[in-house]
Amino acid sequence: MRGSDPLLLGIDAGTTNTKAVIAAPDGRVVAAASEPTPVIYPQPEWAEYEPEALWRSCIAAIRAAVAQLDDPGRVRGLAIASMAETAVPLDAAGRPTFPAIAWFDKRARPQLDRLVAKIGAERLFEISGLAAEPIFGLLKLLWLQENAPEAFARTRRWLNVADYLAWRFCGVAATDHSLACRTFAYDLARTRWAEDLLHAVGIDPGLMAPLARSGEALGRLLPEAATATGLAPDCVVAVGGHDHVVGALAADALRPGVLLNSLGTTEALLRAVERPVMDRELARRGLSQGVIVVDRPCWYVVGGLFTAGGAVEWFRRAIAAGAPYETLVAEAEAAPVGSLGTGFLPHLRLGTPPHPDGQARGAFFGLSTDTTRGCLFRALLEGIAADARLCAEAMQSLVASAGPEEIRVIGGGSRNDLYLRIKAATWNRPLAVLDMPEAVALGAACLAGIGAGIYAGRDEMRAGLRRAEREVRPDPAWAALYGCLVEEVYRKGYPALRPLHEASRACLARQGTG
Amino acid sequence: MRGSDPLLLGIDAGTTNTKAVIAAPDGRVVAAASEPTPVIYPQPEWAEYEPEALWRSCIAAIRAAVAQLDDPGRVRGLAIASMAETAVPLDAAGRPTFPAIAWFDKRARPQLDRLVAKIGAERLFEISGLAAEPIFGLLKLLWLQENAPEAFARTRRWLNVADYLAWRFCGVAATDHSLACRTFAYDLARTRWAEDLLHAVGIDPGLMAPLARSGEALGRLLPEAATATGLAPDCVVAVGGHDHVVGALAADALRPGVLLNSLGTTEALLRAVERPVMDRELARRGLSQGVIVVDRPCWYVVGGLFTAGGAVEWFRRAIAAGAPYETLVAEAEAAPVGSLGTGFLPHLRLGTPPHPDGQARGAFFGLSTDTTRGCLFRALLEGIAADARLCAEAMQSLVASAGPEEIRVIGGGSRNDLYLRIKAATWNRPLAVLDMPEAVALGAACLAGIGAGIYAGRDEMRAGLRRAEREVRPDPAWAALYGCLVEEVYRKGYPALRPLHEASRACLARQGTG
Repeated sequence: MRGSDPLLLGIDAGTTNTKAVIAAPDGRVVAAASEPTPVIYPQPEWAEYEPEALWRSCIAAIRAAVAQLDDPGRVRGLAIASMAETAVPLDAAGRPTFPAIAWFDKRARPQLDRLVAKIGAERLFEISGLAAEPIFGLLKLLWLQENAPEAFARTRRWLNVADYLAWRFCGVAATDHSLACRTFAYDLARTRWAEDLLHAVGIDPGLMAPLARSGEALGRLLPEAATATGLAPDCVVAVGGHDHVVGALAADALRPGVLLNSLGTTEALLRAVERPVMDRELARRGLSQGVIVVDRPCWYVVGGLFTAGGAVEWFRRAIAAGAPYETLVAEAEAAPVGSLGTGFLPHLRLGTPPHPDGQARGAFFGLSTDTTRGCLFRALLEGIAADARLCAEAMQSLVASAGPEEIRVIGGGSRNDLYLRIKAATWNRPLAVLDMPEAVALGAACLAGIGAGIYAGRDEMRAGLRRAEREVRPDPAWAALYGCLVEEVYRKGYPALRPLHEASRACLARQGTG
Repeated sequence: MRGSDPLLLGIDAGTTNTKAVIAAPDGRVVAAASEPTPVIYPQPEWAEYEPEALWRSCIAAIRAAVAQLDDPGRVRGLAIASMAETAVPLDAAGRPTFPAIAWFDKRARPQLDRLVAKIGAERLFEISGLAAEPIFGLLKLLWLQENAPEAFARTRRWLNVADYLAWRFCGVAATDHSLACRTFAYDLARTRWAEDLLHAVGIDPGLMAPLARSGEALGRLLPEAATATGLAPDCVVAVGGHDHVVGALAADALRPGVLLNSLGTTEALLRAVERPVMDRELARRGLSQGVIVVDRPCWYVVGGLFTAGGAVEWFRRAIAAGAPYETLVAEAEAAPVGSLGTGFLPHLRLGTPPHPDGQARGAFFGLSTDTTRGCLFRALLEGIAADARLCAEAMQSLVASAGPEEIRVIGGGSRNDLYLRIKAATWNRPLAVLDMPEAVALGAACLAGIGAGIYAGRDEMRAGLRRAEREVRPDPAWAALYGCLVEEVYRKGYPALRPLHEASRACLARQGTG
């Protein structure tokens, strides 16, 4: 490739790190860098980001990536994917009026209760397609209105993290649909802001930025942004989106018949759907949904395990005294399939759909004196795989009549070959495993490519990307055993253990030791 | 104490070690030694002892203890306590006709099935007071009759390990009642051999040795035994008994109103009763009973946890990669009472009464990302303590109308002070903890003292023994929490998990990986 061939920059502004990836239009990564995103914990249950710190992390990551290039002028476009439910309130002069409240901060519970009382959970679901949760942007705005009225009064714009960074780059404010639909103030079926709802709760719809398609060109770099990043001033800034969804785009998983399984600290399952699911059973099962618009709206349903890789890390740190990951995997490899009857329920933080229990707990069961640490670790992997399959089943009846034709796997967990083999056998179908360590940032780079005109649209982007994929096929003997265990054991795990966990919590609460 | 003051020798011929303790009549231990007891595993599920090896271990332990004395001639008597359900078949010349089949060997299952079919479980319980199990001596004799007919035909005597060793010492064959009642061929209420039953199944009652009281003098050392041990030929050989029961005697726990809790690899709970419990509910709950006769018959009911200290050892070895015991206890001390909601079901080998489930499994439940190894280890101790209390409750309604007035604790587990505090709070009553590391061998020495005329009888022995006891009192806050957890959580643990464990076993068996 000649030095003048175009390159694309994608940013993944995540919970703990901001990553920058520079890729060729065929998806080949030529430079990458990561910077920590500092989180502030002002009091228990609260978490915030300083907007300026978000910006500085982003600039530092870009500079580190750009430094790896022969010619920064080759970067024709950039776009940002970010965590959702995290936004910066700005005054008329573009100055933050308050820190960005982190997505996992639950301070807005009272505001949620009042909103539900006023509007009704059913109506809120009709509008948003979502179960009522305190993390959504609208609740944070209502919290600000009540608890920081002076800051709220000065606020003129509510920009999600990706929107805020794009606005700092090019001076144009916009919100894409995949981040908009996480505000709870978005009409999912009509793909527009829910202005009636905003009026009803006393929020000026003008606070919300204009909606834009992901991949749409917003403008070119401001001179100060070009200087700060080392990029050329004619570099296009394009609209990004919600991190997981942008990653799904890069993995070519936002298509009917495909199940995307993203393996990280949490494990996400995502399926594209023809239209929003208007059955409230979706919310009751703890599932979520949203939409991204590139050429046309693409809706999807999402479910997740809150401690998947997180359970692996917990085991390594808390149980195995920090033993090397390789040692634990080798021990698990040596343990027989089925882990001698040991089972694991991975609800170490929250329940998994269809059991959205905020107080769920995990368990190791089936223990005997023959149970080794290798059995426990293998059971942990088997239990997470089983839980993911049960979660996908909870999505199945709501999204389609037929099972997925293809399962595409991305994320850090795909480095664990034993886990992939366990998963393939648990699904009893081959997995398409993508070698795409930074799918979210790469997806953002793809959107930048649309904005910069490198690809004419989403289909051209899909066709242009070369993805390194390998197939992991199920072992028939493992699949037979796991099929039985999922049906007969794991399906019954949560209901069997819930009474013990509830009773234990009640005892601890009564004695003030909970 | 003058050099000519009398001493007493007690032997504890156990599953893995033979221990010899030499004590003064007040219970003070002046010498002790231990020798391994070699077990042979001829095939899976089988386990045997070579009679000569049992004898050699006993002699070696005695010689090592005697070597610590100024004058071996001071030893006026010896007695042996041993594991039960393990016997040596002898021919007319006193030669073994077969190895001693170990108590935990279950080869005699077919013989048990045929015996139950012929006599009926109800009638067998009426005679023996016991649930039908393949480990009892009668089943082993029937196995020998069918599977080693030539050896059986030559057999003239069936001596339990303690009986066999005593016979080697003095040439007189006898069986005490506490070992006799573990043969399944003993009439528990009438305290005599069940001759009708033996005739009915074609076993000559003459194979059984004459019954003798524990502490009864059998004779004096044979010259060759005196030479082998270094003891004086006028040393009296007295009748011993079943190890746990002889330990209870030393702990002064074979009295109405006392619960003995013996803490070892397994954990035994023992209560003296006025007369045998003829309610078959005792057997259904997995409890056992027996009798020892010193001055008069003393019946008792026994229940046990099969993995108590065994669960601690399992955790240390299999989970904590052999971390020092002190480290684990310190981590558990640092974990809050209630272990942050983590619970443990200690059925790592078999269920605990009232759940005599041969296929039971254990579990850790209530796990969260906050659960540390210290929480797990503390939960393990709390779970064992809760299980012991539930076991004692399963005994309660069958043995008395009132709860025990006193709980006496012996065994190696009493070195773990945290565990004792957890136990005291779980019982919500003070524990009398005895500093008596070798209670079984000391109890045998006490019986030797009766046989040698040092004590006139059991009351004099009780009065003569000075026991080092300390009281461990319950912390009220812990007791309130544990009371709730036992009632609301631990009582429900086994029933909640059984369906998962049964289903898991069925899946593994179906796939041939169980």
